[in-house]
Amino acid sequence: MSHAEPQMRWWGWGEPAQPVTVSDAGSRFILGRVGMTGWASRRPVDLDAVRLPDPAVSDDVVRALREAVGDDHVLLDRASRVGHAAGRSYPDLVRLRAGGLDVAPDAVVSPGSDEEVARVLSICDREGVAIVPFGGGTSVVGGVDALRGGFDAAISLDLARLDRLETDARSLTATLGAGLPLRTAEAKLEARGFTLGHFPQSFEFASIGGCVATRSAGQASTGYGRIDELVVGLRMVAPAGTAEVRTVPASAAGPSIRELLVGSEGALGVITEATLDVRPLPDARRYEGWSFRGFAAGVEAFRGLEQEHGRPDIARLSDEEETELAVALSNTGSAGDRAARAYLKARGHGRGCLVILGFEGNERDVAGRAARCRGILRAHGGLSLGRNPGRAWVRTRYLAPYLRDVLIDGGLLVETLETATTWSRLEELHAAVGDALRGSLAEPGTRPIVGCHVSHLYPSGASLYFTFMARAHEGAELDQWRAAKEAAMRTILDHGGTITHHHAVGRDHAPWMREEIGELGVAALRAAKERFDPNGIMNPGKLLPPES
Amino acid sequence: MSHAEPQMRWWGWGEPAQPVTVSDAGSRFILGRVGMTGWASRRPVDLDAVRLPDPAVSDDVVRALREAVGDDHVLLDRASRVGHAAGRSYPDLVRLRAGGLDVAPDAVVSPGSDEEVARVLSICDREGVAIVPFGGGTSVVGGVDALRGGFDAAISLDLARLDRLETDARSLTATLGAGLPLRTAEAKLEARGFTLGHFPQSFEFASIGGCVATRSAGQASTGYGRIDELVVGLRMVAPAGTAEVRTVPASAAGPSIRELLVGSEGALGVITEATLDVRPLPDARRYEGWSFRGFAAGVEAFRGLEQEHGRPDIARLSDEEETELAVALSNTGSAGDRAARAYLKARGHGRGCLVILGFEGNERDVAGRAARCRGILRAHGGLSLGRNPGRAWVRTRYLAPYLRDVLIDGGLLVETLETATTWSRLEELHAAVGDALRGSLAEPGTRPIVGCHVSHLYPSGASLYFTFMARAHEGAELDQWRAAKEAAMRTILDHGGTITHHHAVGRDHAPWMREEIGELGVAALRAAKERFDPNGIMNPGKLLPPES
Repeated sequence: MSHAEPQMRWWGWGEPAQPVTVSDAGSRFILGRVGMTGWASRRPVDLDAVRLPDPAVSDDVVRALREAVGDDHVLLDRASRVGHAAGRSYPDLVRLRAGGLDVAPDAVVSPGSDEEVARVLSICDREGVAIVPFGGGTSVVGGVDALRGGFDAAISLDLARLDRLETDARSLTATLGAGLPLRTAEAKLEARGFTLGHFPQSFEFASIGGCVATRSAGQASTGYGRIDELVVGLRMVAPAGTAEVRTVPASAAGPSIRELLVGSEGALGVITEATLDVRPLPDARRYEGWSFRGFAAGVEAFRGLEQEHGRPDIARLSDEEETELAVALSNTGSAGDRAARAYLKARGHGRGCLVILGFEGNERDVAGRAARCRGILRAHGGLSLGRNPGRAWVRTRYLAPYLRDVLIDGGLLVETLETATTWSRLEELHAAVGDALRGSLAEPGTRPIVGCHVSHLYPSGASLYFTFMARAHEGAELDQWRAAKEAAMRTILDHGGTITHHHAVGRDHAPWMREEIGELGVAALRAAKERFDPNGIMNPGKLLPPES
Repeated sequence: MSHAEPQMRWWGWGEPAQPVTVSDAGSRFILGRVGMTGWASRRPVDLDAVRLPDPAVSDDVVRALREAVGDDHVLLDRASRVGHAAGRSYPDLVRLRAGGLDVAPDAVVSPGSDEEVARVLSICDREGVAIVPFGGGTSVVGGVDALRGGFDAAISLDLARLDRLETDARSLTATLGAGLPLRTAEAKLEARGFTLGHFPQSFEFASIGGCVATRSAGQASTGYGRIDELVVGLRMVAPAGTAEVRTVPASAAGPSIRELLVGSEGALGVITEATLDVRPLPDARRYEGWSFRGFAAGVEAFRGLEQEHGRPDIARLSDEEETELAVALSNTGSAGDRAARAYLKARGHGRGCLVILGFEGNERDVAGRAARCRGILRAHGGLSLGRNPGRAWVRTRYLAPYLRDVLIDGGLLVETLETATTWSRLEELHAAVGDALRGSLAEPGTRPIVGCHVSHLYPSGASLYFTFMARAHEGAELDQWRAAKEAAMRTILDHGGTITHHHAVGRDHAPWMREEIGELGVAALRAAKERFDPNGIMNPGKLLPPES
């Protein structure tokens, strides 16, 4: 990684060790499409200029919290409050950059143990203070926005001090504190010869607890499994008590309580630690590029990869528009780039679809699976581009959110959303959501960029991940975003998709939960919440839809 | 299968096309161990002699039910009531054979559609009649015992008419009615070129809905996955309404409602259909026998199979005692059998542990995985026994419950129980449960037989399946059984196991649910039940522990 140990910026993604820039070709492509003659130069306000709600937590409560976790672990300062006010969704970024925060925590509290978590919950439950569990703060669906709900105050419960790590080499599991950053957990596991294999784009900042609480999937989850598939046991501290899921590989003891706690997004209680499957650290890694003439052929090839047991760890198929954008952004204008384009064009892949495949494991296993996948892709018309595109992807795999900051500076709306459906409906859903986004964002003189990739393969289907860009409506960014989001969500629900494949529900998707899981599903979640969190202090305004 | 189309007997397992007998060597071994000089000759009472509770469903209710589902689909006769009174646990068999049924349904009702299910639920909800969903009636944990709960009457809701089957070849899924017997579903899928790959020992009788409602695992679930891993979508009709889980391969939309309905054992509502992953029908099948010198070496080999991605579909390791029993039961006294024993003895496997491995798929895939597994087993000291033991296992894979009837006739208590834990604790749990069962069942002059096999491999652990036999206490069978069961369950909970890996909770395991899932887990289930089934008519007395 060229940007080791970045720190999160209060108004955007991390502070890169090297500046992220847009190539000339990328600029030309984007500006041309959205109808701009040059980049704007929008900057966030200064931290000191950010307007915050008045702190509303009483001295008595602060005193009690300090007694519970120690004086050093209750923070009331501006930087802490702003730094825990929001996640990193586009609406979050818009609000942060404009400096008008309608929500922010009244205090940031960092418990150092399960007992301290329980004490904080007990104080807040008694005093009527909302609690927003906070891991890495990377939610892109408003999951950590410090809403007070119906309460007078809210605290952000920063879990960073819950950083236990213990491994069971025989069972290939690790018990990890919720606050451990994925990056730290992975480094510590690697030192012991293991990998968790969980690499979401937020890898540099996201936490273990955050991933488990949101059913995260990473770039390699086609191979390693989604985080929910890796959870063997876990512990949750809730206002009503502590729930512990036995550390067993499988059970038939009724409905899965594990699956009730996983994905609960802080709305039932605080996941304080989880026992997860790990794997031996791979000694071989192989990432390849492929091209398909069109999206439909690529989808069929990916279905083949999954259903014929090709078993790639990473599988990503960009549609024509995402490919065009990626090619433009990576185009340095070199002779090599020109030759590559000519090669593709000559083979009928001039407007093709880029595929990245990745394999991690021992040498023999990687070679075997790569060979099997090669056969499947070729049978579906795939053209090998060798290892260079794979290497480039690895180099840039965590950079998109940095780039987003640059593009927002430049005057763009940049957002992503994701869904999943069966193979039978994948192309229909792809087309429909793309049309919905284009329809919502198109205006005279500007055409939105709507790219998509297929990733996260399952026997019965796959996920679709959309990235879209448009000229931002300065001062009305949130209205513009909301219209596009609503159009996409409506379309997803009408075409057999899920409202989220791995970004979770948070604040942004909560209104669609009733359609996603039905009235009885919502009723069951509400009922569980009443038992775990009788007074409703846990992460209000997230996960559950507003009462109808 | 040598016994096509068996019918369930009212007092025991199915009616075999060929009688199941105990070999002379098997008889000698069992009788010698339990200290009997010959087999007893116990027979069930005649059906006409079975004492049933007086029918308690009112004429008005019967009339309403007949209007809801049609006259032919409301049965009140003795054979129907007895045939739906109980599952096939040892306590069920003891009660049925003795002819003193303290519980039996007052009527057997067979709805033909979701709408009819809803109508029946509505009638029963209004009239205060308990409903016991009934698929194949194969529960071994009292899951279909027709308890009335606090109500005056109970009906058995036989789902056999919900027999829809639809396939999606592109997504490799099948939508299956809850009442479809596994055997029928598999035959119909095979005719279309697919397999569900779900082969529990109850395969000949169990239903799709029953499997989904109980988190069933089959003999090949190491490869194909547990039924809960195969569920892509499902529908449940509950007294409070209908819940539908969207047919998507994965979702991050909060806690999993799918995982709340799967395993709900009829206590929330009636699962009426499920969409499940299927696979192309394998064109190659390979089943092999192996031997290990001892259980510990076999466990390490199995851990290697799973963690080094050997990927067998079927993997079963019998401990020394189960191996000894299996060898005795299959010993025909032939020269071949003698030679095989001599071969094993000469190689230090005289008291070894039998392994069955199975592979299903296309030729190349089967050959590749079998070769990989061979390497792993040999590295751990495994001795190949060739294909014959595999063939024998396939031939007899569904026969154990038939044999159980014969052994009960002969005067034995015969019971099974299963659990799962991590690899780190597997041998500890194996030893402790074995000791607990032996301790409970041992008496002067008789030694129980307690065998166990490891199966259902996961990266982090595996299941343990115990079979135990003892001289039955005539007239006090249930006390004898309860003491052994309680000793085993206590031990399982104390040594890191789950109370059930695939038999489910039902009536027999409900008392241990509080320890299995904790107070908050139980509270969450109760809360869900209150929303789905406000008046508590659905399968009372199952799944949830008694109120404390």
